[in-house]
Amino acid sequence: MNTEVRAAIIGATGYGGVELIRLLQAHPRVRITSVVSTSNAGAPIADGFPHLNQIMLDLLDELDVQLIQGKADVVFLATPAGVSTELSPKLLAAGLKVIDLSGDYRLKSPEIYEQYYKRKGPISADLERAVYGLCEIFGEDVGGADFISNPGCYPTATLLGLIPAVKEGWIDPATIIIDAKSGVSGAGRGVNLGVHYAEVNENFTAYKVNKHQHIPEIEQALSRVAGKPVVTTFTTHLVPMTRGIMSTMYASVQGELRTEDDFIQLYRKYYEGRPFVRIRNQGKWPATKEVSGSNYCDIGFAVDERTGRVTIISVIDNVVKGAAGQAIQNLNMMMGWEETTGLLFTPVYP
Amino acid sequence: MNTEVRAAIIGATGYGGVELIRLLQAHPRVRITSVVSTSNAGAPIADGFPHLNQIMLDLLDELDVQLIQGKADVVFLATPAGVSTELSPKLLAAGLKVIDLSGDYRLKSPEIYEQYYKRKGPISADLERAVYGLCEIFGEDVGGADFISNPGCYPTATLLGLIPAVKEGWIDPATIIIDAKSGVSGAGRGVNLGVHYAEVNENFTAYKVNKHQHIPEIEQALSRVAGKPVVTTFTTHLVPMTRGIMSTMYASVQGELRTEDDFIQLYRKYYEGRPFVRIRNQGKWPATKEVSGSNYCDIGFAVDERTGRVTIISVIDNVVKGAAGQAIQNLNMMMGWEETTGLLFTPVYP
Amino acid sequence: MNTEVRAAIIGATGYGGVELIRLLQAHPRVRITSVVSTSNAGAPIADGFPHLNQIMLDLLDELDVQLIQGKADVVFLATPAGVSTELSPKLLAAGLKVIDLSGDYRLKSPEIYEQYYKRKGPISADLERAVYGLCEIFGEDVGGADFISNPGCYPTATLLGLIPAVKEGWIDPATIIIDAKSGVSGAGRGVNLGVHYAEVNENFTAYKVNKHQHIPEIEQALSRVAGKPVVTTFTTHLVPMTRGIMSTMYASVQGELRTEDDFIQLYRKYYEGRPFVRIRNQGKWPATKEVSGSNYCDIGFAVDERTGRVTIISVIDNVVKGAAGQAIQNLNMMMGWEETTGLLFTPVYP
Amino acid sequence: MNTEVRAAIIGATGYGGVELIRLLQAHPRVRITSVVSTSNAGAPIADGFPHLNQIMLDLLDELDVQLIQGKADVVFLATPAGVSTELSPKLLAAGLKVIDLSGDYRLKSPEIYEQYYKRKGPISADLERAVYGLCEIFGEDVGGADFISNPGCYPTATLLGLIPAVKEGWIDPATIIIDAKSGVSGAGRGVNLGVHYAEVNENFTAYKVNKHQHIPEIEQALSRVAGKPVVTTFTTHLVPMTRGIMSTMYASVQGELRTEDDFIQLYRKYYEGRPFVRIRNQGKWPATKEVSGSNYCDIGFAVDERTGRVTIISVIDNVVKGAAGQAIQNLNMMMGWEETTGLLFTPVYP
Repeated sequence: MNTEVRAAIIGATGYGGVELIRLLQAHPRVRITSVVSTSNAGAPIADGFPHLNQIMLDLLDELDVQLIQGKADVVFLATPAGVSTELSPKLLAAGLKVIDLSGDYRLKSPEIYEQYYKRKGPISADLERAVYGLCEIFGEDVGGADFISNPGCYPTATLLGLIPAVKEGWIDPATIIIDAKSGVSGAGRGVNLGVHYAEVNENFTAYKVNKHQHIPEIEQALSRVAGKPVVTTFTTHLVPMTRGIMSTMYASVQGELRTEDDFIQLYRKYYEGRPFVRIRNQGKWPATKEVSGSNYCDIGFAVDERTGRVTIISVIDNVVKGAAGQAIQNLNMMMGWEETTGLLFTPVYP
Repeated sequence: MNTEVRAAIIGATGYGGVELIRLLQAHPRVRITSVVSTSNAGAPIADGFPHLNQIMLDLLDELDVQLIQGKADVVFLATPAGVSTELSPKLLAAGLKVIDLSGDYRLKSPEIYEQYYKRKGPISADLERAVYGLCEIFGEDVGGADFISNPGCYPTATLLGLIPAVKEGWIDPATIIIDAKSGVSGAGRGVNLGVHYAEVNENFTAYKVNKHQHIPEIEQALSRVAGKPVVTTFTTHLVPMTRGIMSTMYASVQGELRTEDDFIQLYRKYYEGRPFVRIRNQGKWPATKEVSGSNYCDIGFAVDERTGRVTIISVIDNVVKGAAGQAIQNLNMMMGWEETTGLLFTPVYP
Repeated sequence: MNTEVRAAIIGATGYGGVELIRLLQAHPRVRITSVVSTSNAGAPIADGFPHLNQIMLDLLDELDVQLIQGKADVVFLATPAGVSTELSPKLLAAGLKVIDLSGDYRLKSPEIYEQYYKRKGPISADLERAVYGLCEIFGEDVGGADFISNPGCYPTATLLGLIPAVKEGWIDPATIIIDAKSGVSGAGRGVNLGVHYAEVNENFTAYKVNKHQHIPEIEQALSRVAGKPVVTTFTTHLVPMTRGIMSTMYASVQGELRTEDDFIQLYRKYYEGRPFVRIRNQGKWPATKEVSGSNYCDIGFAVDERTGRVTIISVIDNVVKGAAGQAIQNLNMMMGWEETTGLLFTPVYP
Repeated sequence: MNTEVRAAIIGATGYGGVELIRLLQAHPRVRITSVVSTSNAGAPIADGFPHLNQIMLDLLDELDVQLIQGKADVVFLATPAGVSTELSPKLLAAGLKVIDLSGDYRLKSPEIYEQYYKRKGPISADLERAVYGLCEIFGEDVGGADFISNPGCYPTATLLGLIPAVKEGWIDPATIIIDAKSGVSGAGRGVNLGVHYAEVNENFTAYKVNKHQHIPEIEQALSRVAGKPVVTTFTTHLVPMTRGIMSTMYASVQGELRTEDDFIQLYRKYYEGRPFVRIRNQGKWPATKEVSGSNYCDIGFAVDERTGRVTIISVIDNVVKGAAGQAIQNLNMMMGWEETTGLLFTPVYP
């Protein structure tokens, strides 16, 4: 019985792609058989990523569906918006499993996609096929699927932090405010003044206030769980660091006032058996470095009796749990493997 | 007519103290005549701060009120909590003007001081004498005062961002949520694991959630302006950078929905003639580096019609506008000088 | 046949110790059975290192040789100077294998140890027993040894970069100048003003010029290879980053002028079969991030015909190849296992 | 008598240009009358540099020599290589004084310029007219000049550190090795992968080893002082910080072995009356942050009797003393003003 899966990575020269390489190389049941880049095809991948010298000798492949079909069983798409819309239907038609790390298939409404992504989205039939792979929340949809839309980085941290309380009715969805912060790798490897070291270093900035394309993704999932439309206030900030996301979230506690300990117990129960979500003890809040390089999402709480609000703090490594790690977690669940296969590395500290 | 003022700095070897030195040396009407440090008295200040070599030759003085009385007209206290409680009454009794950068005299309620600072606060008579020197808001109290309690760094950024809207009744004070972020210099020069480079770098952390001693200071000022008690939700985060504070603030807009442009006009009118507050144009939000090394507070707005909330973003350099710069601005106003005297330097960029 | 080794880590709450935990947890043939800390015995290790929550549940043990003897086969000492001098003889007497990450047993001359470490060094009999575990150079001594003195971080980067050329006589040892740079984790987790974030960030400093305790360690190894006494010029600098060392080394080329390609070929041949040393192609020099989180040492060359000098650039992750990783590499070789066992992780990039 | 000088800045939207704006605005005898940018002419300069909001209201001018002639007395060129070659002759012909911050007129040999800058250099007649404005060394040439070639950042730190010892014959010029490190602002505001935050942060890299265009500039000045051709080994490194250069320099001491104290005395005497060069006491070495934001160059020494070598450490802020600050110092000296006019600001610490 051959249980090894052959994987192709499209967009292998971005940060999501190169992290897939790092993680898949340590995965016991996956072999990378093709790394694809439209811009540098034919060159050794280690040319652009010298840390892969003597580790990965592969040359970058052209983007050619037939070629991929011959080499791979599953395809990871770590591509800019729009690419997957074009490519995924072809890959699926070729019998390949697809895990799409881009935002193309996350929003079920083509109109909202177009509004936030400023481009035409995928057609409805394909959209319906795509499973939103937020493993700890909607994991039951993932087993056996062949097309996964991997959640965005901000939505992953945010939804894991909010959903148990929303589901239980402990917080009023209408009061949710999300103050999110990300390291610079979230912006990708493309160059522009916004990622110039001298502009980012010793600087803290807000961007896309109330306009970020992850807003509808978060609201879609919250609405699904709440059973009614939810709108949120969402701010994104850029932190002078490479990796890490923190979502600091605020909401009014509903019904009786719950204590921090109540929230901790609720979340620990909700995430029981899901090793990648760790709930901090009372009076402790997680920091981004405590999950760096790993697939963990750590969550802590503060309840303020004076205001009747809960503050929920959720952190992930945006490149791992917010991208490549969760994509592999989805693969594990698609294949019926243990969810943690190849993902149980300790965070890199310091 | 001798209009030069002689200044003493107590706590000259902390970050607030050494920034006072930097700024006062460029002030045309102030001469530093004594730099006081209890821990290193007798040593040249440049020993601990080599950047002052050949610039400031002074030896650190002992803390001795009589000595200061002979050398200075005004005393800046850049000392840890508790010191000013002891010292300010003596300095005032000696006929000195006092500008206190610590939190000792900011809270008018001794009970609340004790609750947040975990120590006995000053006695009421002295408290009444202390003027809370938030120059652009309560500046009318400063002229002619002899005892200024200089606002905290978080309150400065936060209150300048909130007060015009609160005063005008445009936002509901009960809905205010403040998500604040600070560089590490705000923690002072003392050493502990929390400021160790390897722990802070590539890390984003939350701390003292709902417990920070600046909460009552913010609420006291908001209540004063609102004319009724205001409680807020306030979170502080540590950013891996040295200088800078951003307060990202959320509130529900009251009455008719105001546009971003409405807020911009309101704030520009409120701060007319106050050069240190700069209001950004629509769709622009300030970044901390844009005020670094300067006395500016920059503010921007986003109004979300979907949620009926306004997001207000306010940035300062915590060591300047949040400490030494505002202290000098207070001195200028106490003395009846132009508010900007010695403070009109351009931010250091990049 | 049970080939699993039980390991104890003494000094588990320093950066070297905690990195040993990270790496050993992924090692297929080692089980950590005791983590020892004199300062926090009895507390869960995750209290001080929240990134280990739900990963390592162990309580910190007291330092007790008998206890360790009952639980472990091998002991890693990640302790400050002086501890190993006391402890290693006892551990060895108890039949334990010892891998000492401190500097105590690296210098064969007690006089020089005392001069640089400002304390009494170990006695000669123990010194003779300790094998200097620079795996790629002196690896033949390691197999079967029971007491390893693990090289320092600077010496590892430096010696791997210099020794092939010194051995071959291609460079004049008398002309060697080493300009070394390290991230802050090299200073350990102890707190002092020198590691305060606000002092280190946006700063580049030199320290211990010509006085660093790694100088005699480097010279001892170079002298051994050169067959005659070698003295060097060695400067250490602190880089505002957490991990990474670069040694930039200069020497006059001896005999005929060798090209960059000559050096590349020489080094590739020397390190053939040693996967952790990677030699860059001509015109390429390694950067510290390209080995971050990994056990690699990457080396590049520039030969200047105008001056007759070669510049050799060598990088490592100081916490891995410069400490915990090399210690495990030594364990592998002591045990007769494959040198790379448990160490073949890809660098974390970016 | 009107002693105010009107200044135009060409290339005002680069880091050198915008630092000229910061410094000149605080200069008591200069008024900026035109800021020129070919790429954004017509837009307010504050659009691209929000830190200048309400400080500098100017619109960016087209590049038009006649227009400049009508508005300015002196022109600062903060432009990429090649621009000054074209422009300076025209500006000089129009009767303007020119201070060129680019490398175009630094090298007296057109062949060497072409070799290192990969473009045709200026013609000889203009080259002869250009005065190399290393103020503390060749300042006697500056007074009364109308065309200054402002030194490069690395040469400034390096030459101020080496020249007194070379001139005195205390070090052997043939043995000089320069290991230089720079913050990222030295690369300019242009975008490319090499300045991407995620690539630079937590990374230390070497670049242009033995190939940097500042090598011939350094050698030209050293040769002039030594009275014979000097070639050097020169390595440049990129430090993850925004501002600051350190040159760590090595050379063999000639004649009798001089102590650190000898070097300190020699340099203090050489730089007597030149306030911008500060010599550290014995056993102290300067750090880049100690000159940040200022026009100082700080120098320290270590002499090693074992090797007979001196290590000289020299630091500057590359944007100030290595560019805009020194350019203004040159203006001061051209105009016969006090060298320090408008430049005596204290370094920004921390």
